[in-house]
Amino acid sequence: TVAAPVMAQSALPSLKWKLASSFPKSLDTLFNAIETVAQHVKTATGGRFEIQLFAAGEIVPSAAVLDAVKDGTVEMGQSASYYYVGKDPAFAFDCAVPFGLNSRQQSAWMWSGGGLELMRDLFKDYNIHNIPCGNTGVQMGGWFRKEIKTVADMKGLKMRIAGIAGQVMGKLGVVGQQMGPADIYPALEKGTIDAVEWVGPYDDEKFGFNRVAKYYYYPGFWEAGPQLSIYINLKKWNELPKEYQQALEDACAFAHVQMQADYDVKNVAALRRLVAGGTKLKEFPKEVMVAAQAATLQLYEEFSAKYPRFKKIYGPWKKFRDDEYLWFKVAERAYDSFVFSQSSRR
Amino acid sequence: TVAAPVMAQSALPSLKWKLASSFPKSLDTLFNAIETVAQHVKTATGGRFEIQLFAAGEIVPSAAVLDAVKDGTVEMGQSASYYYVGKDPAFAFDCAVPFGLNSRQQSAWMWSGGGLELMRDLFKDYNIHNIPCGNTGVQMGGWFRKEIKTVADMKGLKMRIAGIAGQVMGKLGVVGQQMGPADIYPALEKGTIDAVEWVGPYDDEKFGFNRVAKYYYYPGFWEAGPQLSIYINLKKWNELPKEYQQALEDACAFAHVQMQADYDVKNVAALRRLVAGGTKLKEFPKEVMVAAQAATLQLYEEFSAKYPRFKKIYGPWKKFRDDEYLWFKVAERAYDSFVFSQSSRR
Repeated sequence: TVAAPVMAQSALPSLKWKLASSFPKSLDTLFNAIETVAQHVKTATGGRFEIQLFAAGEIVPSAAVLDAVKDGTVEMGQSASYYYVGKDPAFAFDCAVPFGLNSRQQSAWMWSGGGLELMRDLFKDYNIHNIPCGNTGVQMGGWFRKEIKTVADMKGLKMRIAGIAGQVMGKLGVVGQQMGPADIYPALEKGTIDAVEWVGPYDDEKFGFNRVAKYYYYPGFWEAGPQLSIYINLKKWNELPKEYQQALEDACAFAHVQMQADYDVKNVAALRRLVAGGTKLKEFPKEVMVAAQAATLQLYEEFSAKYPRFKKIYGPWKKFRDDEYLWFKVAERAYDSFVFSQSSRR
Repeated sequence: TVAAPVMAQSALPSLKWKLASSFPKSLDTLFNAIETVAQHVKTATGGRFEIQLFAAGEIVPSAAVLDAVKDGTVEMGQSASYYYVGKDPAFAFDCAVPFGLNSRQQSAWMWSGGGLELMRDLFKDYNIHNIPCGNTGVQMGGWFRKEIKTVADMKGLKMRIAGIAGQVMGKLGVVGQQMGPADIYPALEKGTIDAVEWVGPYDDEKFGFNRVAKYYYYPGFWEAGPQLSIYINLKKWNELPKEYQQALEDACAFAHVQMQADYDVKNVAALRRLVAGGTKLKEFPKEVMVAAQAATLQLYEEFSAKYPRFKKIYGPWKKFRDDEYLWFKVAERAYDSFVFSQSSRR
């Protein structure tokens, strides 16, 4: 005999939603996040709430995900919010800004530092409910065909780099180039560009950049803790039963931890292979870092004068950043620098 | 009119479970995690799955939570698994071991590095299903009445420090003392003990240790990324509908991110207040760190010879740790050390 239910169930709808991603399936660390979200939500709702996943280009192009969710073309999206700085540079705070927060600090800002409220206030105007869902950690500075020893070496360099980072690089004399994933490798091979930044060892290795550029620089100071986000059409979100909203929010939190964990594991083996294959790992000279930071702060003042939304978020964000740096430079820095310096490079 | 449900609901039971915590409500950053879990699970299950929370001592004492879940006295528990090193030192890997993983690396090990499988294999023998749920980040090294300049200054020091960390300290000549929260302050005030380690600025401030000890050392090298865990009686877990299992697992992930975020925010203001009140912030001398690390590695060899469970986990854990240090010393270290050094102490 089957046990009778203890109480009658309230009526929950069957839903089948579409999610458009800004990423191809080949970037599995990113795509896996939405596979996790879809699977967890389905399980938590007894199969009633299904989310169909579409890779970049299947329904809309990579950079059109925000508009597709806003307009209701799809109910959900997965994207990196700094793709939309053309609409408003304030979107970058939802992902990464140059010389910003590292992965853990970004999560602290979103979950406990008032960041999520500020970002939701922005996204609301675009008819979207946003949920943080993953982070890559500090990215690499990218692949360079020539060694960078001084700021002067950056001048005239043609580099594939987009968004606000491209504007910062522009102030150092770099000629930023925007191009889709498929065009980068040939351009670097032919010498049409001199440098390219993408993500980190695991993702970069797939493109084979190491075969046409010898120097692999770090850190990617424009992406210290890039957060990925899930977008939900605000009207659709508000129509969801509370049960489904909660299942979705918590599934995103699981995928949030999962993505950072996956990057922290997969990047190690990839980095080992790259170095074994002859890639020269190089730290950006301090002179370059100092000049880039100065250019960044100048750019933020320009943005603040021009974009009210950016200014509104930049004030509290800056205070939060300074607070986090103060705290992390105590125990976290002391511990990490001791154990890392004691561990030998293999 | 009310829309009819699209499909019939399957029968889900109403449940009311008890959760015993190892922590008092006053440690709100820790207790908040289970309040979040209970609230999210309730919402995701339409109110059907309720979890009642009990603070340390209400049903069972702080260090008896594991046994209470194992024996089915309560369905669930919240604890720090290193409280149970007396049963098997291998339990410490589920929380923190001296000179271990930092917060993000601990999550990487659990979610993507095989750690969760290894720990579940251990907990299964105690009739428990464990889920990671929160982390404090690198803790502080604690409050000292006298300045520590050399390893010799540690000799004969009476310090409230428990578990494996106490054994490491013992190798440096420290006389470890175990005592409950209520006894620590009076003991430090009277000089019965010379030093105490607890958590970090936010939690420590509540005890008022700063009023009776002047020096606040960092980093707590024995707790680089202490993870908290939720325990579920294995039989009860297996009886849960898949929907409830998923809701619980994902709610724990949300609370996992939330706790680290809360510590990263709340510790800043507390540290500022402590320093403004006269607390002297001090980094452990490198000599002490080096001696403690050597003592730790020696202890792990002793454990490996004596405890098969410890040995089984220590091997892959050690390889994982070395891999993570290798990766983090590239972009993460370079970024953090640049931005932290550029930010001025306020």
